[in-house]
Amino acid sequence: MSRSLQSLTRLVYALRALPGVGPRSAERLAYYLLQSKDKALHLAQTIENALQLIQQCRRCNTYTDHEYCHECQDERRDKQVLCIVETPHDLLAIEQSGVYAGYYYVLMGRISPLEDRGPESLQLEKLRTRVQEGEIEEVIFALSPTVEGQTTLHCIQALLQPFNVRLSQLAHGIPLGSDLAMLDRLTIGSALTHRISLSD
Amino acid sequence: MSRSLQSLTRLVYALRALPGVGPRSAERLAYYLLQSKDKALHLAQTIENALQLIQQCRRCNTYTDHEYCHECQDERRDKQVLCIVETPHDLLAIEQSGVYAGYYYVLMGRISPLEDRGPESLQLEKLRTRVQEGEIEEVIFALSPTVEGQTTLHCIQALLQPFNVRLSQLAHGIPLGSDLAMLDRLTIGSALTHRISLSD
Repeated sequence: MSRSLQSLTRLVYALRALPGVGPRSAERLAYYLLQSKDKALHLAQTIENALQLIQQCRRCNTYTDHEYCHECQDERRDKQVLCIVETPHDLLAIEQSGVYAGYYYVLMGRISPLEDRGPESLQLEKLRTRVQEGEIEEVIFALSPTVEGQTTLHCIQALLQPFNVRLSQLAHGIPLGSDLAMLDRLTIGSALTHRISLSD
Repeated sequence: MSRSLQSLTRLVYALRALPGVGPRSAERLAYYLLQSKDKALHLAQTIENALQLIQQCRRCNTYTDHEYCHECQDERRDKQVLCIVETPHDLLAIEQSGVYAGYYYVLMGRISPLEDRGPESLQLEKLRTRVQEGEIEEVIFALSPTVEGQTTLHCIQALLQPFNVRLSQLAHGIPLGSDLAMLDRLTIGSALTHRISLSD
């Protein structure tokens, strides 16, 4: 990248910070933005607007334009079930599955010793208070199937021990539509251990 | 995407306009930007800065922060060779190959009847004037190996007919490191037709 292109170089570097964008894609995106000035300006303004307007839901922590998110405002949901997820993106994924009709609690992270994030980095007291209110009968953990996700699960499990709520977590197994030969052995092992009986 | 997430929805849509970004990647990018506010703001401002500062080089049309681009300002280059490319991104690709030391002319597009872009959409008069100056001895076409690229080539070839300059174009053939079995038959056919003799 030549010296006369300082603004362009800076743009390429800013784009490279995005997840999944390598040096070549960043270049491609940068040139695209310069060629499509309207779209580029729109994107920049949309990012700034989003940063300005989006806040965290006072009840479940997810991103929202309002004080409370759409899901927390929805009175028709099942008040007896609470699903704990790590991020707003995970909440969206569960919503899009279309099979869950309870409420959510977004941890906004997970316990990660390597990144120096302990239990105090999650708003667990707020979660405890919510479960303590007594209306919730089941807490479903939808945390990432990693060591960090499972550590977080165990920590919250201990926190919720005193309360009379059922705890459950998402089933681990082979994803639908996957190629068995391409799956890692831990997933296949877990799917074997938790195999579903067909004879009942 | 729920109703309370208007800013987020708009952000996802703005990101989907980028090349190579599908619905899922757009979601991922949007949530990443909201989580990394500093990087997001930096990206938005970098885009706006680039749009404001970057102009087209008065001589070769490529993007630059200054009146003339780095390449056009470089006095040590070979003044007898001019390479014609379609976009500033193509110019960068040729520069990065490290084997070209002449000057460039960027068409900022190509003739495309389907997109209603005829020869008048390219700044061909400026190119003609430049070749007419007489210093250039060879014009190298580095246009895309497509019908549109070749149409553009023929049009410029006719334009430069009156002048005493050699015309050439990039060799067509099999890309280095490619898998022969995965290449299309037109490329293989062209590579066979233009095969390089090893017996000289």
